Amino acid sequence: MAVTEEDTPKTPGDARRAPLSDAGLATLDRYWRAANYLAVGQIYLLDNPLLRSGLTLDHIKPRLLGHWGTTPGLNLIYAHLNRVISTRDLDMIHITGPGHGGPATLACCWLDGSYSEVYPDVTRDADGMRRLFRQFSFPGGVPSHVAPETPGSIHEGGELGYALSHAYGAAFDNPSLVVAAIVGDGEAETGPLATGWHGNKFLDPVHDGAVLPILHLNGYKIANPTVLARLPHDELDALLRGYGHRPVYVEGDDPATVHRALAAALDDCLDEIARIQRAARREGATERPRWPMIVLRTPKGWTGPHTVDGVPVENTWRAHQVPLSGLRENPGHVRMLQEWLRSYRPDELFDEAGRPRPELLGFVPEGDRRLGSNPHTNGGRLLRGLPVPDVRDYAVEVASPGATAHEPTRVLGGVLRDVMRATADRRDFRLFGPDETASNRLQDVYQATGKGWQERMLPVDEHLARDGRVLEVLSEHNCQGWLEGYLLTGRHGLFSSYEAFIHIVTSMANQHAKWLQVSRDLPWRMPIASLNYLLTSHVWRQDHNGFSHQDPGFIDHIVNKDPRTVRVYLPPDANCLLAVASRVLGSRDRINVVAAGKQPCPDWLGIDAAVHHLDRGVSVWEWAGTDTGREPDVVLAAAGDVPTMEVMAAAWLLRRHLPKLAVRVVNVIDLMRLMPDGDHPHGLNDHGFDAVFTADKPVIFAYHGYPWLIHRLTYRRRGHDNIHVRGYMEHGTTTTPFDMVVLNNMDRYRLVMDVIDRVPGLALSAIGVRQQMKDKRNEHRAYIREHGEDMPEVREWTWS
Amino acid sequence: MAVTEEDTPKTPGDARRAPLSDAGLATLDRYWRAANYLAVGQIYLLDNPLLRSGLTLDHIKPRLLGHWGTTPGLNLIYAHLNRVISTRDLDMIHITGPGHGGPATLACCWLDGSYSEVYPDVTRDADGMRRLFRQFSFPGGVPSHVAPETPGSIHEGGELGYALSHAYGAAFDNPSLVVAAIVGDGEAETGPLATGWHGNKFLDPVHDGAVLPILHLNGYKIANPTVLARLPHDELDALLRGYGHRPVYVEGDDPATVHRALAAALDDCLDEIARIQRAARREGATERPRWPMIVLRTPKGWTGPHTVDGVPVENTWRAHQVPLSGLRENPGHVRMLQEWLRSYRPDELFDEAGRPRPELLGFVPEGDRRLGSNPHTNGGRLLRGLPVPDVRDYAVEVASPGATAHEPTRVLGGVLRDVMRATADRRDFRLFGPDETASNRLQDVYQATGKGWQERMLPVDEHLARDGRVLEVLSEHNCQGWLEGYLLTGRHGLFSSYEAFIHIVTSMANQHAKWLQVSRDLPWRMPIASLNYLLTSHVWRQDHNGFSHQDPGFIDHIVNKDPRTVRVYLPPDANCLLAVASRVLGSRDRINVVAAGKQPCPDWLGIDAAVHHLDRGVSVWEWAGTDTGREPDVVLAAAGDVPTMEVMAAAWLLRRHLPKLAVRVVNVIDLMRLMPDGDHPHGLNDHGFDAVFTADKPVIFAYHGYPWLIHRLTYRRRGHDNIHVRGYMEHGTTTTPFDMVVLNNMDRYRLVMDVIDRVPGLALSAIGVRQQMKDKRNEHRAYIREHGEDMPEVREWTWS
Repeated sequence: MAVTEEDTPKTPGDARRAPLSDAGLATLDRYWRAANYLAVGQIYLLDNPLLRSGLTLDHIKPRLLGHWGTTPGLNLIYAHLNRVISTRDLDMIHITGPGHGGPATLACCWLDGSYSEVYPDVTRDADGMRRLFRQFSFPGGVPSHVAPETPGSIHEGGELGYALSHAYGAAFDNPSLVVAAIVGDGEAETGPLATGWHGNKFLDPVHDGAVLPILHLNGYKIANPTVLARLPHDELDALLRGYGHRPVYVEGDDPATVHRALAAALDDCLDEIARIQRAARREGATERPRWPMIVLRTPKGWTGPHTVDGVPVENTWRAHQVPLSGLRENPGHVRMLQEWLRSYRPDELFDEAGRPRPELLGFVPEGDRRLGSNPHTNGGRLLRGLPVPDVRDYAVEVASPGATAHEPTRVLGGVLRDVMRATADRRDFRLFGPDETASNRLQDVYQATGKGWQERMLPVDEHLARDGRVLEVLSEHNCQGWLEGYLLTGRHGLFSSYEAFIHIVTSMANQHAKWLQVSRDLPWRMPIASLNYLLTSHVWRQDHNGFSHQDPGFIDHIVNKDPRTVRVYLPPDANCLLAVASRVLGSRDRINVVAAGKQPCPDWLGIDAAVHHLDRGVSVWEWAGTDTGREPDVVLAAAGDVPTMEVMAAAWLLRRHLPKLAVRVVNVIDLMRLMPDGDHPHGLNDHGFDAVFTADKPVIFAYHGYPWLIHRLTYRRRGHDNIHVRGYMEHGTTTTPFDMVVLNNMDRYRLVMDVIDRVPGLALSAIGVRQQMKDKRNEHRAYIREHGEDMPEVREWTWS
Repeated sequence: MAVTEEDTPKTPGDARRAPLSDAGLATLDRYWRAANYLAVGQIYLLDNPLLRSGLTLDHIKPRLLGHWGTTPGLNLIYAHLNRVISTRDLDMIHITGPGHGGPATLACCWLDGSYSEVYPDVTRDADGMRRLFRQFSFPGGVPSHVAPETPGSIHEGGELGYALSHAYGAAFDNPSLVVAAIVGDGEAETGPLATGWHGNKFLDPVHDGAVLPILHLNGYKIANPTVLARLPHDELDALLRGYGHRPVYVEGDDPATVHRALAAALDDCLDEIARIQRAARREGATERPRWPMIVLRTPKGWTGPHTVDGVPVENTWRAHQVPLSGLRENPGHVRMLQEWLRSYRPDELFDEAGRPRPELLGFVPEGDRRLGSNPHTNGGRLLRGLPVPDVRDYAVEVASPGATAHEPTRVLGGVLRDVMRATADRRDFRLFGPDETASNRLQDVYQATGKGWQERMLPVDEHLARDGRVLEVLSEHNCQGWLEGYLLTGRHGLFSSYEAFIHIVTSMANQHAKWLQVSRDLPWRMPIASLNYLLTSHVWRQDHNGFSHQDPGFIDHIVNKDPRTVRVYLPPDANCLLAVASRVLGSRDRINVVAAGKQPCPDWLGIDAAVHHLDRGVSVWEWAGTDTGREPDVVLAAAGDVPTMEVMAAAWLLRRHLPKLAVRVVNVIDLMRLMPDGDHPHGLNDHGFDAVFTADKPVIFAYHGYPWLIHRLTYRRRGHDNIHVRGYMEHGTTTTPFDMVVLNNMDRYRLVMDVIDRVPGLALSAIGVRQQMKDKRNEHRAYIREHGEDMPEVREWTWS
C-alpha cells in the first residue's frame, strides 16, 4: 500500500513537551502496583484474592511456580506503554522477550479488559481475579510464560533469543506500527538476539514501522549476573551505538524517579521515531537513521521481599523465580507474603467488587489500541488471501516424460515474481533467505522487487533497494524470526534455505510448531498463513560444498511435531513444485517443508498431471511401469527429485533388461501420505496404502533423506516387512552428483540389483543382468575418479 | 598447571620495535604470491602445475569448484602469522572462520611442509603440486572447505558462525597459546558469531591463552554486500569497542602498503597481549583487559581477474567462488587464467623441481610451531586420560529397590567435583552450561572450582571466580562452541542443558559428528575426548515451565549420525547415572547423549548392579518381574527414568491385581542396543534381542521421548509387530508431573490397561481390573485439577 500521511505516528505537541504530571505519575504508579499485586497473586494464591481475610495456607497454591524477578519491570513498561499509546493514539504492540514473566502480561491484559473479552469466565471482578490467580500455572489452567493463550502476544517467552527478530518481522510493511521490543539481559546473551540487533539495517523507515528496543537490565539470570548488566558503561554504550541505536538510559530504584525518567525517555524516543519517519516519508531522507532505544536498569524482583531468612533477595538472582517458598514449613513466610501483597495497598486499587478502580486506568487505551487487543497480535484478523496466480501459466511443456529438464526453483521464481507484483501495493508477502535467493535460482523475483537494504549502496551492487521485499542476511535465525513475526501479524512469506543449514533454526521451528498447535485450539486466535520452507541446494546436490552441506535431517525433526501442523512435500520435478507452491502459499496454520532441487531435473509430469499427483499425494505412474493390467512383481517407489530420477532410470533399465518383469512405479510427493490415516490427516488408510504399494510384494523405495524415516512412517503397514529403503546414509563429500548416489547405494544400478535380490526367483534367472549392473556401477566409479565428472551417459540420460 | 614464566609469550625487543624490513616484505610477498598461485591451481588445474607449457583445456578440471573470494586474504594472514610465530617463537594456532577458502589453508600447509608429513604422496615438489591441485574438490580427493582432512585445523569451514567460540574454547586453560581467529564479514552476521565476541568476558588472562580476532572485511557474500563492511566507520568502531576490543585497522589494496600495515598491526596486538598477560600474571591486574583485535579490509578476490567479460569481478561479490568459468566455451578465459596464474611469477616461487624456493620460506616456522603442525590442532596428541574417581565411592545405598529416592544429577555433582579437584593443576576439564549448573543440581562442583567470570563482582554473587572452570553463559551456541574448541585441542568436558533447548545447537552437533566421523578414518588424527551432553530438566519434569520446555527430539536427531560416533544413555536412577558418567567421561571420539532427571527418583539398582546393567545395556530385572522360570505373558520395558518409574508402578499393580500373569520387566539404559548389530556397534544381535524381548509376546514399552523412535530402531526385529510404545506425544503444558504422563498416555494405569488389551485372553478375564485402572486414572486427573498437585499416593509411592 502507499504510505499515507495517516501512517506516520502523530506527535501531539502536548505529549511531547509536557513532562509527566504528578497526577499522571500517581495514575501510573497505581496501575503498576495493581499489576504487581495481580502478578504476586497469580504466583501464590488459590483463593482470598483481595486479602479480605487473613492469609492462610489454604489460600496458597501447593506448587509455587512462576518467574517473579522480571515481572515488576514488565509491569512498569506495560504501564508506560499504555500512557504513550493513549496520549499519542499509537498503533503499538509489544514483544516480551522475558516472557517467562507471564504473570505480568496476564495481569495487564486483565486490567485493560482484553483478557475477559477472550476468556469471558475470567471476569474483571473479584471472582474473575480469583480465577485469574488460580488458573496460573495450575493444571488445566494457563502456562507460566507468555504463550499463545496470552492475548496481545505473538511471542512465546520460553525459549529466549527471538524478541528482536520477531519485532522486526512485525514491523516490516506495517508503516503505522510501533513495536516495543523488551529484551531481557539474559536473553541478550544468546546468539539469535545478538544478531537480532542488525534488523535495523533492513528496516525501511518509509514502508516499515518502527521497532523500539527496551533493554531491561535487571542484572541477573537464574544464578548469575548478566554480561550486559556488568559491562562498564562506556562499553555498553559503545555496543548499543555500534548496533546502530541512540540509547536513552533510565536507571533507579525509586519508583517516582523511575516513572518520570521512563515517561520522558519514551516521549523522547517516540518523538524521535516520528521525526525519523517524517524525514524519510516527507523529506526523502535515505540515510539509515540511528533509531532510539531505551536501557532500563531496575532491580530484579523490585518491590518484592528485600531479604528472606536473612539472605538478600530483591535485586539479586534469588528473585528470579519464587522469592518466598516453603510456606508450609515456614509460617513466617505466609506472614511475609501477606505483607508483601498488602504493600501494594489493594484496597486503593480494587473496589468492593474487585474491579480495578478508575483512578489507575487513566492511561489504559480503548478497544483495539490496547496492547492486549491490538489486531496485529492476532494476525489472522488482518490476513488477506494471497493472490497466487494460476500456476498453469508457468508450467513447463512436457511433450514426453523425461525428454526435457528444467531447474525447478527457477521455474518457481516466475510465480514468486508475480506474487510480488500482485502484492506491490498491499506489501504483505516477503521472501527470506540467507544470501541465497539467486544461488537458489529464484532471481526472477528481482524483476518485481529488490533486496531490502538500508546501508550504503555501491554501483557494483545488484537488486538492492530501500523498499525491497526480499530479505537476505547471513543469519538463518534472523530469517526465521523475521518470517515468524511477519506471519504472526497476518502476512505471508517463504523462507528459502540450503537444506543442511535449516538445522540452525530447528529449535525455532519447534517453538513455532508448538505455537500453532496451541493456537489451533483457541477459538479467538484466527488462522494465520503457514510457515513455508523451501529447502533447496539439497543433500544430493551439495556435491561441490561437501559433507558439511549434506544433511536431510530437518524432515525427520519436523515430523515429530503436531500432525495437524506439519506437511512435507517432495516434488519430483518443476511442474510438481509449482503445484506444491500453489498449495502451501494458500494454506493456513501449517509448517510446510518443501525440498526441491535447483539443478536441471527431468520433467516428468505435465502441469495437470502434477496437480493431480499432488491431490493424490502418492500416485502410481502407470506410464512408467510394466505392470499394466496385472499384479506387479515389484514396486519401485521414489520420494524426492533425485530419488525419482534414479528410480526412473532403474525402471528404464529393468524394462530393457528384464522386460517380462511387472514393475510398478510409484511416486510420493506428499510424504505424510505414508502415515496411517489415524496418525496424520493426510495419511492413507490401509486399504489405499495396499492398493498402491501392495500388501506382499517387494517395495524398493528410494527416499530423499535418511532411509529409516520411511520405516518410521510405515511400520504399521501390512506390507512393511517387504519395504526396502535406500536413501542418504550420511556418506558425503565433494564429488560428482552421480557419485553421491553411488556412495549412498541409491543409484539406478543398485536399485536394479535390489529388485533382482528381492523378487523371488530372479536371483538365479537374472544373475547375468545383476553382474552387468555391478560392472556398470564400477565402471562409473572408475570413470568419475579418473575424469572428475560423471559419465556422459548419466549426464545426458533421458527416459524417453 | 601453575602458570610459569615460560607460558607468557615473549616480546623480543627487535620484533617489537623494528618495523617490517624491505627484505622481510619481499619474503612475505613472495610467500603470498606462492600461496595464491597454489590456490588458483587447486581450483583449476588437473595438470601442468608449473605452467611449463602453455595452458590448454586438457589441463583444466571439468568441474570448477572452490571459493576464491576469501582465499587471498586468508593467504595474506597466514603469511603474516608465520612471521610473528617465527620472530616471537609463538605457540599459535589459527581458526579460519571463512573456511570455505579451503585452497588457502591447503596451499599454506603444503608450503610449510606440514601437508606432506601427513599425506606423504603429496610431496613438496612438482609431482606433489600436481596431486595437490588435482585432488582438490575432486572425486576421491579432498573437500573444498577447511575440514578434518586439513592439517592444522580444528574448524570446519562449511557452516558459518563458530570461529570465535571455537577460538575461545581452544584458548581456555592454554596459557601459552595465542589463537588467531579469522572472522569473515559474512559469518559475522550469524547469531552464534555475534554472541561469540562475548567470549572475552570469560577468558582469564592468567590461566587462559589469548584470542586475537581478525575481522576480515572483504565486503561481500555470495550475492550481497555484508552488513559489517558497509557500516559507517564510527558505528563499526563502536561495535567492536562495545564487544570489549581495541580494534586496529588495516586497509588497502596495494600489497606493499598492506604488508607493512598488517605486520605493524600484528606486532602492536601481540605486544599488547604480552603486556596484558604480564600485568595479570606478574602484577596481579584483575580488571578485564580490552584485548586488541585487527580489522583487515582488503578486496574480495584480490589479485584475481579484475573484470571478466566486461563485468567487474575483483572486489565484488562476483569473486566469491570461481571468477573465471565456462572455460570450455570461452577459449579467451583459458588465456585469462594463464595470465592470472603467470601474474604470480611462478618461476620466481618454485625451483626446477617444483619445490618452493627458500626465499619465500624465510618466515615459515619449524616443526610443531608451524600452523599446519601445531599439536593443539590435533588434540589427541596432547590428550591425557581424565582422572575419574571410582564411582562406587559416590553410590547411593539401595537397601531395597525403590525404597529410597535421590536426585541423580545431584549425586553426579560429587563425582564432577572430584574430577575438578583432581584436575586442579592440570586444568583440562571444564563444565559448560547456560546458567543452569545449580538449577540442574550439579552445584557440588563449586566446592572445587568457581564459575569463570571476568566482569565486576558484587558481594551478592556466588561462586564467581576469575579462574573458575565452570562456564555459564545464556548461549547454548557459546557453550557448545567452547566445548568443541576445548575438546578438539585435547581436553575434556561436559555440557549440561535443559533437554528442550539443546535443539538450539542441533546444527553444531551435526557438524561435530561429521568432524568425528571423518577424523576417525584419518590415521594421523588422534582420538579426542567425547562430547558429552547431560540433558536434564527433561521433558517429563518441565511441568513448571510448560510446553516450550518439553521436547525430547534431540535424541531422534543424534541417532541419524554416524553409528560409530553416537551413543544415547537413559540411566533409570542415580547409580546408573554414575555408571554412565564414568563410561562417557572416559570415552573417545563420541557424542554421548545422557538424559537424566534432576528430581528425586527412586533408587532401583545398587552400584554393582548399575555397572552390570550398563555393561549389558539392556537387562531383564528379574526381581521386578513375575516370570521367574517361565515364558512371560508380556514384557514391560522402559527406557528413561520417568518411564522406568511408571513401568515399575505398572509391574507393581499387575503383581497385585493379576498375580498369575507372567510379567517380564526389562530396562534399557543404552538405547543403541535396540538397533541391529549390523547397524550399530552397540546393537544386539537378533538372538540376544529375542532372548530379552521375546519374538512373539506383547511388549509394552515406555520410552522417554517420541515413541516412534523405538519403532525406527526395532523395525527389523522379529517381534516388532508386537511392540507397543508409549512416550511423549507432544502433549504438554504447565501441570503436575503425574498429569504429564497421563496426558501422554504413559502413566502406570494406562500401561496396565495396555497389558490387559494386548495379552491374549486378558481382555475378558481382567475386565474388572481394567475398569479399576480407568477409574483410578480419572480419579487422579480430577484430584490434580482440584488440588493443583498430584495425589499423595503418586508422590509417596514406593515399589517395596
